[in-house]
Amino acid sequence: MAEFKYKVTQIHGRLSESSKGWTKELRSISWNDKEAKYDIREWSLDHEKMGKGVTLSKEGIVTLRDLLNGLEL
Amino acid sequence: MAEFKYKVTQIHGRLSESSKGWTKELRSISWNDKEAKYDIREWSLDHEKMGKGVTLSKEGIVTLRDLLNGLEL
Repeated sequence: MAEFKYKVTQIHGRLSESSKGWTKELRSISWNDKEAKYDIREWSLDHEKMGKGVTLSKEGIVTLRDLLNGLEL
Repeated sequence: MAEFKYKVTQIHGRLSESSKGWTKELRSISWNDKEAKYDIREWSLDHEKMGKGVTLSKEGIVTLRDLLNGLEL
């Protein structure tokens, strides 16, 4: 895997927690010094290791919000 | 990687599209015949290949919705 750097600019909140203590969180992350994007991803207990997830632009996260508001939850 | 099977029970919508045609989508997916969960993931153009993403329970997706509704977007 290519090297990359990232900076967590904001932790918006925790979505769930696994039995091993990993948490799924919504954060804003700047990848390789670019503009921060919204990121839904799994993190280790000490927040040092990142698991799989998706990164979304503002447009994508707005679309997600509107989709979720249209669901019966 | 262990084998697994999945069944897409619903495609709720598309969140974004990459330059290569992969799309990030919100779907409901049943993994290994278990109850369907919400899934935010990247899919290939023909919808045959899945990329990285996160799976969330109903509780997790409700938390996400409420978090997003609290953001200024």
